This record gives sequence, C-alpha cells and structure tokens, in this order.
Amino acid sequence: MHVMEAILNRHSYRGQFLPDPVPREHLTQIMEAGCAAPSGCNKQTTSFIAVDDPAVLEKLFDVIDPKVAETAPAIICVLTRKIIAYRDRTFYVQDYAAAIQNMLLAIVSLGYESCWYEGHITDTDRIGDKMARILGAPEEYELVCFLPVGKAAEPVKGPKKQPLEERCRYNSF
Amino acid sequence: MHVMEAILNRHSYRGQFLPDPVPREHLTQIMEAGCAAPSGCNKQTTSFIAVDDPAVLEKLFDVIDPKVAETAPAIICVLTRKIIAYRDRTFYVQDYAAAIQNMLLAIVSLGYESCWYEGHITDTDRIGDKMARILGAPEEYELVCFLPVGKAAEPVKGPKKQPLEERCRYNSF
Repeated sequence: MHVMEAILNRHSYRGQFLPDPVPREHLTQIMEAGCAAPSGCNKQTTSFIAVDDPAVLEKLFDVIDPKVAETAPAIICVLTRKIIAYRDRTFYVQDYAAAIQNMLLAIVSLGYESCWYEGHITDTDRIGDKMARILGAPEEYELVCFLPVGKAAEPVKGPKKQPLEERCRYNSF
Repeated sequence: MHVMEAILNRHSYRGQFLPDPVPREHLTQIMEAGCAAPSGCNKQTTSFIAVDDPAVLEKLFDVIDPKVAETAPAIICVLTRKIIAYRDRTFYVQDYAAAIQNMLLAIVSLGYESCWYEGHITDTDRIGDKMARILGAPEEYELVCFLPVGKAAEPVKGPKKQPLEERCRYNSF
C-alpha cells in the first residue's frame, strides 16, 4: 500500500475483530516499523511487547475495564522509559507517539485495523501498570498504550474532521 | 512509495538542500498527511503553516540560532493548542508527534528529506515563540516544531540503532 493511501485510509477502529490469527512475521514487521521512528537525540525510549498467546491476552483483557478490543487476536503493548535527552528534557512522549503512528500505518498496510488505546489505560485506575506487571516489565518501563491487531469484522469509518483550511496555512497564520 | 519502504528509509537529514522549489501541491499533500493523523478524542489540536516565501523564510531563519536547515526551500511549522480531551487530560504532544510522523513519511514518499526540529526551538531561548510572532499566530497557539522540506544535496545516512531484539518482545518482557 502506498504511503499517502495508508495515511488517508487509516482510521481508529473500535469494532469487533475476526478470529484469524496474525502471523508472527506481520507482528515483527509492525514492531520494526515502530523501531524505525525517530526519537529525540536518538534515545530510543520506546519498546514493544506483541501478545498473541491467547492465555496472556485473556489475562490482559481481564484487567482492561471497561472492555475494549477484546476480540483482537493480537495486541502490541507500547512501553516507554523516561530517558533524559539533554539537561532536563526528555522527548519520550513524542518518541512513543511517532512509533505508534508508524505502527498504525504498518498495521493498515498489512490489511489489519487498530486503535490507539492510551487514555483508557493511563488514567487514575492505572490499568497499564497492571498490564505491565502481567507481562513482567521492569519498574522503569511504563506501559502507556496498546494497539489491537486484527482483521475488521465491521465497516471501518473515519471521524468528522475540521476542513483542511482551518488547520493548514501558507506563510502566515 | 510503499508504506514500509518509507518507514524504513526515512532518516533525519541535517545536510544542505538543493535550491529546487517545492510545488504547493506537495506542501498541501504533506499538511494533509499531518491532518490525517489521529488525535486524542479527535480534538485535532495540531495545525500547520507551510512557508515557501523566501522573504518569510529569511525572517524565520534569522531567529533560529544556531543555524539549522537554512538552505531548505520550504519549511512546515507545527503549531499546537493545549485543548483538554477530558477532565484534566490533554494529548496535544501525542497529537502533534503523530502528525509530524505522518508528514515525515509523506515528505520522504515525495522524494524530499526532512528532520524533526523541536528541542532546538522550544528551549529556554524560546525560538519557536519568535517564529510564531513572525507568522502572526494567535497567543493560544504554540509553535513546537518545524520540518524543512527539500531535495537532499548530500547523502542521507541513518543513525546507529539498538538491535531489534532489545526493543521487541513476544508475550512477556
């Protein structure tokens, strides 16, 4: 799939997934796309755990409340370390967001759908921390997002967006 | 260009640019790619100003110190508004990072090179604020990043990265 086609046709998918498993080769490619994103001062603060073992998926979906994406045959968990880039500055949020966007495009280009689940697991109930413990992640890693990966069982629809001219300008505001 | 090809071949380019102008059609496509990125609760906090007027470019490059990307025939300035998504949460950093990543891929797919200049203009000397004033951006918009757009005059090289297996795992850390 071409770059602009993937960019323009990627939408957040919150519907049911078909049960078809996702080959390891595809999950690896998706994580490779995540690793290829730039990071502030090349600190590579982001890492990934792909989960396709039904027993592990069940444990994770058990702590995700309210339930979302629970029919996905695989998910990719996004972990970050708040590494200082220079002085007091860290770009770990920018780093993982760029990695996530790369992975969302890779997912769509492989024929799957996904959705960026972050706020849902990083609120005061700290679902992401529970997921990190299930996966055995060390303390310094924070699990900030997960992406379901699977074939859509329902139509994919995009959200309503502002007209381009309200967000894009030339040479002055 | 295919999605994975763009993702894997995009590198931060800090060299000189050829003077060839960038057609408006391409700058529009790049900003369209930025607008197509997801945003937390669809708040669309990010907007863009493409600059291709040599007089405006000169004014902007005048305040960027130390000098970077000053041979670029065009740049895209990224602006954000810290809109609340829900309660006290805003995802404006994630939003603009995802938009920037989309634009970097669009830039590469159109045959140009770029680099994510953020820390350079958001440090205590607040270069981004000076750029925002030159462009006439309202107070509530923060200029957080700019992307040069142009054809590379020098070879493009990628950075040294950690081996994939240090960042990518399956089913547990």
